[in-house]
Amino acid sequence: MKIIAIVSGGLDSISMLYHYASMGGSYRPEHEISVLSFDYGQRHKKELAFAEQAARHIDAPFDVIDLSGLTKHIGGNSLTDSIPVPDGHYAEENMKITVVPNRNAIMLSIAYGIAVARQADAVAIAVHAGDHFIYPDCREEFTKSFEEMQNKAINGFGNVRLLTPFIESSKSDIVLKGQAAGTPFIETWSCYKGLDIHCGACGTCVERKEAFLLAGVKDPTTYLR
Amino acid sequence: MKIIAIVSGGLDSISMLYHYASMGGSYRPEHEISVLSFDYGQRHKKELAFAEQAARHIDAPFDVIDLSGLTKHIGGNSLTDSIPVPDGHYAEENMKITVVPNRNAIMLSIAYGIAVARQADAVAIAVHAGDHFIYPDCREEFTKSFEEMQNKAINGFGNVRLLTPFIESSKSDIVLKGQAAGTPFIETWSCYKGLDIHCGACGTCVERKEAFLLAGVKDPTTYLR
Repeated sequence: MKIIAIVSGGLDSISMLYHYASMGGSYRPEHEISVLSFDYGQRHKKELAFAEQAARHIDAPFDVIDLSGLTKHIGGNSLTDSIPVPDGHYAEENMKITVVPNRNAIMLSIAYGIAVARQADAVAIAVHAGDHFIYPDCREEFTKSFEEMQNKAINGFGNVRLLTPFIESSKSDIVLKGQAAGTPFIETWSCYKGLDIHCGACGTCVERKEAFLLAGVKDPTTYLR
Repeated sequence: MKIIAIVSGGLDSISMLYHYASMGGSYRPEHEISVLSFDYGQRHKKELAFAEQAARHIDAPFDVIDLSGLTKHIGGNSLTDSIPVPDGHYAEENMKITVVPNRNAIMLSIAYGIAVARQADAVAIAVHAGDHFIYPDCREEFTKSFEEMQNKAINGFGNVRLLTPFIESSKSDIVLKGQAAGTPFIETWSCYKGLDIHCGACGTCVERKEAFLLAGVKDPTTYLR
């Protein structure tokens, strides 16, 4: 299967990449994977270097789509603006301001355009159950609806499935699945603050720590606190 | 109603803009309109100047989203590549190569992101019945499905309708509706070739000529042939 994988450089998307590329470390030749990242002016842009590194490791083509021109139109949130990133657990109301409006629909529709141009079979995205509470565009009712919409949009031009292998997985499930696929977790980036090391206090850092703890897998990450 | 109008600078989208902005030349204060254009590396980029001019005329904010970085990933068609634009009527198989894969889904998802950021009520796009035959993403089954998908994607963050006022209109119907709204047709651009004047031979030029003829409205356009 020819797969366009949307990879941010985070724990989830790189685990997904290894999930399709390898099983227990051995390469799976049945998938031809290419890696797609997005630069939407995010503060934690260093995650893109982790996406590129992962693509290199599995010998996949890597492309970054530059959407940084969108930032000034689509701002009003702390991932792209000068609003401070809030500390604390994801499941708090103030984490809503980390949302880039409609980000998944935008990334997926561009990935589908590329999939049609390259005659790929599938687009893959690492949305997971832990994101459902706050982000409507990480829920299965969205991803199913998106796939239906795309079937209509590219009818006659391509046949592209939407793969969401982690849609029912918790973040700790992803750690277990990522481990089984041989994912080098140290080469993934979660923190929203974009410092030299993970801050250990923002929503994604708290969630990352918790995921390793719940999975019973040693966390190789160095945190500021 | 606060409307984000997707305007290419062509006959259809500028007629739609005047349709919402004015009726018979008088301004309709019930709508607060902003104009959104896309630069996707199209050969006929001069149409964007017509979009900007129309926005100025109705005193609406104008923004261009730069997607030109997409071109090299999403190419393979004559709107953005060096493949010659075919002459002839739209309803011919070779016009398929003028398609930018998934263009409407990409533009609409970005417009929805902006609509959420600006707390707008609607996104408007000028897809019409004449495009249904070749372009699946101009059909009502696509636009309905897109609106449903978006309701799920932005659930809790916004409430944005998708307006498709011309979805059942032929191009000649649009000429009549555009005329009723006081559209200055001379300030619209259709030709795919991007010369100084309309070429008169490409698919959109043939269609444009035919629309004025069928509507019985004088065509103010100067054509090369």
